Amino acid sequence: MRAIDLNADLGEGFGDWRMGDDAGLMALISSANVACGFHAGDAAIMAASVALARRHGVDLGAHVGFPDLAGFGRRRMQIDTATLAHYVTYQLGALAAFARVEDYPLSHMSFHGALGNMAAEDDALARPLLAAVQAFDPDIIISTTAGNAVERCARELGLRVACTFLADRAYQANGLLVPRGEPGAVIHDPLLVSQRVLTLLQTGSINAIDGTLLAMDISSVLLHGDTPGALQLIAQLRQDIANAGGEIIPISKHSYE
Amino acid sequence: MRAIDLNADLGEGFGDWRMGDDAGLMALISSANVACGFHAGDAAIMAASVALARRHGVDLGAHVGFPDLAGFGRRRMQIDTATLAHYVTYQLGALAAFARVEDYPLSHMSFHGALGNMAAEDDALARPLLAAVQAFDPDIIISTTAGNAVERCARELGLRVACTFLADRAYQANGLLVPRGEPGAVIHDPLLVSQRVLTLLQTGSINAIDGTLLAMDISSVLLHGDTPGALQLIAQLRQDIANAGGEIIPISKHSYE
Amino acid sequence: MRAIDLNADLGEGFGDWRMGDDAGLMALISSANVACGFHAGDAAIMAASVALARRHGVDLGAHVGFPDLAGFGRRRMQIDTATLAHYVTYQLGALAAFARVEDYPLSHMSFHGALGNMAAEDDALARPLLAAVQAFDPDIIISTTAGNAVERCARELGLRVACTFLADRAYQANGLLVPRGEPGAVIHDPLLVSQRVLTLLQTGSINAIDGTLLAMDISSVLLHGDTPGALQLIAQLRQDIANAGGEIIPISKHSYE
Amino acid sequence: MRAIDLNADLGEGFGDWRMGDDAGLMALISSANVACGFHAGDAAIMAASVALARRHGVDLGAHVGFPDLAGFGRRRMQIDTATLAHYVTYQLGALAAFARVEDYPLSHMSFHGALGNMAAEDDALARPLLAAVQAFDPDIIISTTAGNAVERCARELGLRVACTFLADRAYQANGLLVPRGEPGAVIHDPLLVSQRVLTLLQTGSINAIDGTLLAMDISSVLLHGDTPGALQLIAQLRQDIANAGGEIIPISKHSYE
Repeated sequence: MRAIDLNADLGEGFGDWRMGDDAGLMALISSANVACGFHAGDAAIMAASVALARRHGVDLGAHVGFPDLAGFGRRRMQIDTATLAHYVTYQLGALAAFARVEDYPLSHMSFHGALGNMAAEDDALARPLLAAVQAFDPDIIISTTAGNAVERCARELGLRVACTFLADRAYQANGLLVPRGEPGAVIHDPLLVSQRVLTLLQTGSINAIDGTLLAMDISSVLLHGDTPGALQLIAQLRQDIANAGGEIIPISKHSYE
Repeated sequence: MRAIDLNADLGEGFGDWRMGDDAGLMALISSANVACGFHAGDAAIMAASVALARRHGVDLGAHVGFPDLAGFGRRRMQIDTATLAHYVTYQLGALAAFARVEDYPLSHMSFHGALGNMAAEDDALARPLLAAVQAFDPDIIISTTAGNAVERCARELGLRVACTFLADRAYQANGLLVPRGEPGAVIHDPLLVSQRVLTLLQTGSINAIDGTLLAMDISSVLLHGDTPGALQLIAQLRQDIANAGGEIIPISKHSYE
Repeated sequence: MRAIDLNADLGEGFGDWRMGDDAGLMALISSANVACGFHAGDAAIMAASVALARRHGVDLGAHVGFPDLAGFGRRRMQIDTATLAHYVTYQLGALAAFARVEDYPLSHMSFHGALGNMAAEDDALARPLLAAVQAFDPDIIISTTAGNAVERCARELGLRVACTFLADRAYQANGLLVPRGEPGAVIHDPLLVSQRVLTLLQTGSINAIDGTLLAMDISSVLLHGDTPGALQLIAQLRQDIANAGGEIIPISKHSYE
Repeated sequence: MRAIDLNADLGEGFGDWRMGDDAGLMALISSANVACGFHAGDAAIMAASVALARRHGVDLGAHVGFPDLAGFGRRRMQIDTATLAHYVTYQLGALAAFARVEDYPLSHMSFHGALGNMAAEDDALARPLLAAVQAFDPDIIISTTAGNAVERCARELGLRVACTFLADRAYQANGLLVPRGEPGAVIHDPLLVSQRVLTLLQTGSINAIDGTLLAMDISSVLLHGDTPGALQLIAQLRQDIANAGGEIIPISKHSYE
């Protein structure tokens, strides 16, 4: 694996409130997950994000979340599954409208925050939500961490799946993340983060937290733009990948079988 | 003119709150204007409305309004025009997503409430909002009352326009509505309302409030489903139209030049 | 026990949407639980509800819920407890403002919907929320069904507690409700409902679902105004209570030790 | 006039979104206007703002605005006056609840953004909104710029009025602000801003834009915390006032006749 997508969450302001440096980030990544007005974002920010994505040739994805601006979509909500599936359709359609106006494709989607966590844990939730994505557009690529219900159900439905590597998180030998809160779960050293990406690119494997060599079929690396110095780090990572002979390509340019 | 569309606003509940008898109304009309979650409606109600429209062969339209659930979109808001245009795009896309999932077309749109009134008065507002509709889908028919900025700008942009007759409102000799509050502005007698529709169908004209014969190029009659007895009246109107040899056809089946 | 409060949830419209017959209900009950704008209600409806309560001498209570108009506060939300406690304060203050303007007291409060269910199950949630009530006003009476975490924690905090009888629900021998979905959980026969209230008033006990005689220290009966014929049933119940020599008094007129 | 209040708008975040450095600002000012959840702010931010105000001995005021988070309360809305008055009551009550919990007084209020502009222009709007403030608590001080409908109506109602000096804005000879957009309307030089405050403190007058000496009966200076370097400027201003023998006192410590 010599080609990788650099992926980030974007468009997470709301009204006059800003979050992150969308323009700075968009210049460095190859695919963006844009909030759709439920957990963050609004029509004006979505329009601006789509225009930015198009200008930079960045793949456009929908970041679909709970209807909870006050909680940024990070609070679990017990919503009946049929209604949630309609929320997915609504958000995809809203973002797709801006894509259509810009004549630019909506290539992928991912679930945000608490909705993402709940779907990752539960096939009975993940499957109908993914079926809603498929009913809207069967060509949309599902972006997710590997080994959870979202990946499993998306593959069962015949959707294309882009597994995302969380470069600042430790993995267990079974391929799942070390849960937050456990020792070593989060990797804070930016050099180490960058090194893990390069190792994965060069060898197709990383070391799990117990030292096991863990093969990962990864299309994408998820980056966080909202920490101080993040943009410089991402720029450095781009350089390191180039120096190592790797290629940065958008999520839709990978081959999915 | 022997063919007419019967048109109504629908899907105006929100969450657990209901407004009007959507299922009853959908069985009687030929085109529906469905709220898109800004002034009324939500994802679940939109999904249900689209499914109902498809089942009854009723043309599906987007009823686009202000982001003001608490005011039902009836309170004027001074929102900058570019942002408003994005609100239009967002709402069209959200409803179009449910249409796409049902494999049923989104045929038309109209502006709701205070947004409709403001756009009707002001070319500088109407034109960019209609341009946003056109950028999303140039085949969407614009449904509006005749003689205002929305009709004028839509025609200038080359959009198809379906002029709507408000059967329970008196008209001035210039083709504009007698403003609410003036004597005789609203026609309360259902027999008179029905008679006006038949006269218009048979002759292509109605009498303005001063008695002038007023030719009207009308594709559609707007009905209100939320008054007691409304559904019986609409059923009677359907019968009267049939008895008079008229035909009820959806908004997209008219010919627009 | 010869005196009982008749209690109902009110003010549950939002904007142009109505729910229930607030004016009709207010004429029949002795205490009202008014929505505070989070799960239902808005400032105008709250003002109208407080004015109605004052006119009828009905005790005014705050019905405190989740910030989820789209779900009517019936969807569980995982909100951190400190934030939830602030939501309680906010809602109490908003309703208390209308009470202050009307120079009418805010006498009691209860938790609505999913928030009520979650608090009823969990001392670790109920206690800080009740502490927020107490910090706002230690004289507010807590209205709750008996035997759950809300009753227990309210008593531990030294708050006054008005236990509410759900006349249309069957009880287990331990004083808890038979869970919905189990056979016999809901009593649909209005005569039987009325009879249970009278038996409780006259004897201080009712039969649990297994026939056990169950003593209940009840201050209040919760009525539902949103079913067809509800108002006639409540009027009949008032008559039955009067005929049996019982007295209907507001929640604040009971003696609490 | 040797004593002046330093006043700023605060608590303008929402959910995870932040705006301004509330803690930094609170250490420098003597009175704060806290958003109440309609145009900005939420229950958790309000609770934190009240706690901060109490810790620093800063007077607590309610910043009352339109129900428009997406527009930050800066978009005019045509809401009927009775409903708007209820919105005022609701917001005052919500903030007063946190004050009550902290056992700290709510001393003043001001209107935010578009609501403030509309009320400033129109006695028919200002008077009922101020009457709603008075009905809630007649001791609340009204904070406003001088010479507009809010000042006039508040005085007519017998409310105490604290006129606020906008140190970075030029004034006309009639005491009204030079409208934004006109040349010289905004004063960008921080030294000049500070000098104007000192001149006003020492002489009770400033020069209007045409050079006229303009006597101003000012209790308060409104500061903006959201521009880069603002906190250093305010700290410098505090020092300058102290050096000039002026005193900084909260809005409630002034004498109002």
